[in-house]
Amino acid sequence: MTPGPAPAASLDESVAALFPDVTSDVARRLIASAVDCFATRGYHGTTTRDISEGAGLSPAALYVHFSTKEQVLFQCSLVGHQGVLTAIRAAVSEHTAPADRLRELVRAFTLWHARYHTMCRVAQYELSALTPEHHETVAVIRRDTERFVREEIQRGVDSGDFVVPEVSSAALAILSMGIDVARWFQPGRADPATLADHYAALATAMVTGT
Amino acid sequence: MTPGPAPAASLDESVAALFPDVTSDVARRLIASAVDCFATRGYHGTTTRDISEGAGLSPAALYVHFSTKEQVLFQCSLVGHQGVLTAIRAAVSEHTAPADRLRELVRAFTLWHARYHTMCRVAQYELSALTPEHHETVAVIRRDTERFVREEIQRGVDSGDFVVPEVSSAALAILSMGIDVARWFQPGRADPATLADHYAALATAMVTGT
Repeated sequence: MTPGPAPAASLDESVAALFPDVTSDVARRLIASAVDCFATRGYHGTTTRDISEGAGLSPAALYVHFSTKEQVLFQCSLVGHQGVLTAIRAAVSEHTAPADRLRELVRAFTLWHARYHTMCRVAQYELSALTPEHHETVAVIRRDTERFVREEIQRGVDSGDFVVPEVSSAALAILSMGIDVARWFQPGRADPATLADHYAALATAMVTGT
Repeated sequence: MTPGPAPAASLDESVAALFPDVTSDVARRLIASAVDCFATRGYHGTTTRDISEGAGLSPAALYVHFSTKEQVLFQCSLVGHQGVLTAIRAAVSEHTAPADRLRELVRAFTLWHARYHTMCRVAQYELSALTPEHHETVAVIRRDTERFVREEIQRGVDSGDFVVPEVSSAALAILSMGIDVARWFQPGRADPATLADHYAALATAMVTGT
C-alpha cells in the first residue's frame, strides 16, 4: 500500500488507486467529480447535480451508485484515512532503529499527502460534514494514526535516541507537516519524492538533533 | 501586535483584537457570525441570511455594513494575513542570532494560529472563494510571509548555524506546523503558550540539530 516514489496522481488515478474494488467506470467518474467539487466549492456548496454533471451524467445519476452525497464523502474519507495508516505501518515494518522507523514513517506520510493531495484535502477539511456515526468511524482511524505516531516517538525517547519537549506536541508537529501538504500542494510546485525525502530528514533532525 | 502568552481567544475577542477600527458593535457581530458560518459550513454553503441571522439581525442587515458576503471574507483574510506577518516581524526584531530569531518567529506564528484559530481556519481554507483581485492582494502578503521565513532560514544557513536539506522545504515544514494548528486547535486540547514553546524548540532543533 505504500505509494512508491511516483509523481502526484491525477484525480482519476487517485480514485483508481484508492478504490480498487470500485470497478464501474461510472462510479469512479462520480467519485472523482465529487472530490473535485468538494475541494473547489466545499461539501455544503456542492449539489448532487453538480457531482453528476461533473461526471458528464444526468442530474440524478449519483443515486444509481450512492444513496446520498454524504455517502460519497464518507467513502472518500474512509479510504483516505485507512490508506495512509496502512502506508505508515508498512513503511516502519522493515526497520528497528527508532530514527529509521520515524524517517520512513514521515517519508510515507508526506508522499501520501502529496500524491493524493486533492483527495486528502477533502478528507481533512470536510470532516465536519459527515454524519455523527460516519464521523466517529473516521475519528477512530484518525486516533489510531495519531497514537501510532506518538508511539513511534515514545519508542525513540525510551531508547534515548530522541529528545523532545513532549511526545504529544512532537507528534502533532510531525502530523501537521504531512497533513498540511494536502492544503498547499499543486503539481509543479514540488516533487512528491523529493519533498518526502526532505521532510523525512527534517522530522528526524527535529527529534534526534542530527 | 504580537499576541502575548494568552489563552485562545473567543470569536468575539478575535474580532475585537483583529478589527480595532471596526467600532460598531453590529458590524463586529456580523463579522463574528460570518467567520463562524464560514468555518462551519464553508463560504459557498453560507448565505448572507445565515450571517445576519447568526448575528441576531434581520436577513438583509449584512448589506448595511458590507457590500457583499465576499467583502466580509476578504476583510477577514486581509487582517488575518497582515496580522501574522506583523507579529513574526516584531518577534524576531529584538534578536540577532539566527536560532534566537527563528525560535521567536515560530513561537509568535504558532501562538497566532492557536489564539485566533477559527479566524485563521477561514483565512487559510476559503482563499479560493475570494475574487481574483482580492485573492491577489492576499497572495502578495502570503508570499511576503513565506519569503520572510525562507530568509530567516537562509540567514542561519549562511552563518553556519543551520543545516537543512533545502531552504524552501524547511520553510514549508515550519509554515505548515503553524498553519495546521488552525485546523486541529480546539480550546482545551492544548494551551497556546505551551504549544508555542514546544513548537519553537522543535523547529529550532529541526534546523540546528540541537
